Amino acid sequence: MVTSRDIAQRAGVSQATVSRVLQGNSRVAPDTRERVLAAMRATDYRPHAAARAMKTRRSQTIGVVIADITNPFYPELLEAVSHALDQSGQRMILWNSAGPGEYSALQAIREGSVDGLLFTTVTEGAAPLTEALVHEEPVVLLHRGLEEAQCDQVVSDNVAGGSIVADYLVRAGHEHIGYLQGPELPSTAVHRERGFRRRLHQLGMDLRPELVGRAGFQHDTARTLIRSMLHEPVPPTAVFCANDLAAFGAIDGARSLGVHVPEDLWVVGYDDIAMAAWDSFNLTSVRQPIADLAHTAVQLLLERITDPDLPVRHELFTNSLTVRGSTAHTPLDPPAEQRDSHADD
Amino acid sequence: MVTSRDIAQRAGVSQATVSRVLQGNSRVAPDTRERVLAAMRATDYRPHAAARAMKTRRSQTIGVVIADITNPFYPELLEAVSHALDQSGQRMILWNSAGPGEYSALQAIREGSVDGLLFTTVTEGAAPLTEALVHEEPVVLLHRGLEEAQCDQVVSDNVAGGSIVADYLVRAGHEHIGYLQGPELPSTAVHRERGFRRRLHQLGMDLRPELVGRAGFQHDTARTLIRSMLHEPVPPTAVFCANDLAAFGAIDGARSLGVHVPEDLWVVGYDDIAMAAWDSFNLTSVRQPIADLAHTAVQLLLERITDPDLPVRHELFTNSLTVRGSTAHTPLDPPAEQRDSHADD
Repeated sequence: MVTSRDIAQRAGVSQATVSRVLQGNSRVAPDTRERVLAAMRATDYRPHAAARAMKTRRSQTIGVVIADITNPFYPELLEAVSHALDQSGQRMILWNSAGPGEYSALQAIREGSVDGLLFTTVTEGAAPLTEALVHEEPVVLLHRGLEEAQCDQVVSDNVAGGSIVADYLVRAGHEHIGYLQGPELPSTAVHRERGFRRRLHQLGMDLRPELVGRAGFQHDTARTLIRSMLHEPVPPTAVFCANDLAAFGAIDGARSLGVHVPEDLWVVGYDDIAMAAWDSFNLTSVRQPIADLAHTAVQLLLERITDPDLPVRHELFTNSLTVRGSTAHTPLDPPAEQRDSHADD
Repeated sequence: MVTSRDIAQRAGVSQATVSRVLQGNSRVAPDTRERVLAAMRATDYRPHAAARAMKTRRSQTIGVVIADITNPFYPELLEAVSHALDQSGQRMILWNSAGPGEYSALQAIREGSVDGLLFTTVTEGAAPLTEALVHEEPVVLLHRGLEEAQCDQVVSDNVAGGSIVADYLVRAGHEHIGYLQGPELPSTAVHRERGFRRRLHQLGMDLRPELVGRAGFQHDTARTLIRSMLHEPVPPTAVFCANDLAAFGAIDGARSLGVHVPEDLWVVGYDDIAMAAWDSFNLTSVRQPIADLAHTAVQLLLERITDPDLPVRHELFTNSLTVRGSTAHTPLDPPAEQRDSHADD
């Protein structure tokens, strides 16, 4: 039987390096890693996982907790995480629920069935996270962050994302702007709203209460809310939705009333998931760099598992606006006449 | 520390029964199960998972392999599986890839990190499945089956589903019918096509080759194919799509050409996922009983893990047609005048 000592000799490295490669430690130099992997392939080396776990105390498995797998943003994020884990030779355990899922995931760390956790749906005051941090368990927050939490976090700049949309809509001349909020707690929802409202305020355009509703990232709730806003005496000419799923609901709600997008109503979403590009939606949306977020989160988690004493890192990625047919203009140069016609509304 | 012996005494059952409840064995009578669980709650009993795994050789974890988590059918199926597993106190490990995922999942059984597997995307000639069966590992095929495979299978009747759609479209008077096929191998795709073609043939209406294309369950491919079919000298007046995602692509393709659904083109999908009901699609679709499929598959797998000698079971569920606005009539009573107007096309 081929042993890790054979692999080390063949690749001309130490046994510790072979074991680091097996652990998916990203601080092995790429060419060293390649040499070790080539030696494994050449000898058909198959470390027995149980023996390996015994030696390294690693399960080579990462837990991921999400809140709602039927929101199509999460399958896209999971696919990206899964791809990044594959590249590091790690498996994924998925818990599809906040709350109980997080507790069950924490238990899995203690039982040694996962080495660390990616929380993608943590919210403020989340007890499981606090518990994980008290026990210094390897946890990385991905997508949703918590400013005060002393743990690695990989998020995109949702405040700036909200701000971009405020700029875009006001520059295009909209004076009656609606907002479909996300849920109350997630940082993504809180930050998008903060950036959007703050920039609107700077531009002298506060949201009217009757044009704000809590869609909670849900298609059906968004659909109901936009239908009610479109029946207001002064309906919105543009609506910003806290995620794409809500934006699809807004488009569906408009469609159900014969209100045309973008002629009568501009719709802007957030996430720019694959479906946003479909003809039925053709949605202008703030794009999150999902692959970069996932890759970095996996990287940080594997480093954290290997070295619990690393300083805490907060990685912030930039978002950008993808303009499509659910709005009528490019963000930086709206035609003056369109601005005027909206000003006459 | 509370032991399983304490629980057994308190609940008035044997220790073996306590252990069966912990294993999620479904053959414990519901009221017995409740009594045991109540005793556990009352004493705050927490079996140490490692010790439990040692005794029972069970990880309380089920592996699920799927091929494409970004096809929205799978998140709905996973949510249902996840719900059924929760109810049995089991965790879920997810592998998001066919082929390598299946091998990695098999390895996980051998390492004892999962007790059994649900394969949702197995295809004919799949080597990992053959390997699992040779080694008598607990595997249940869910959603996609394999007629010749000697293992538990839980699927819906896709042949009958295809047949229902043929009946529906021909009765409504369509003479130019298109078909967007799924991929070549999955049983779901093969059976839907078999049932559709066979019933059309019985009704004297074979598919014209230029109105058949392999969309492979993909939105974008379906969109391209329907656009090309709609440019045929005699375009289709109705198209059946092997899944909902392809049907959304067909609707998007029609929309991109200004072809109206259902006035100019009827579109029928398969699966009836949540998005099918959205205004943008309003899709007539064959409904699979996802919750029943998932619940039964979890049940059979837990039974199989407990008792490897059970006879092999094949469970077949019935599908039904959900009629919405992407077609114009109810299946059983199409108005005669509409049938005539189509016959004049």
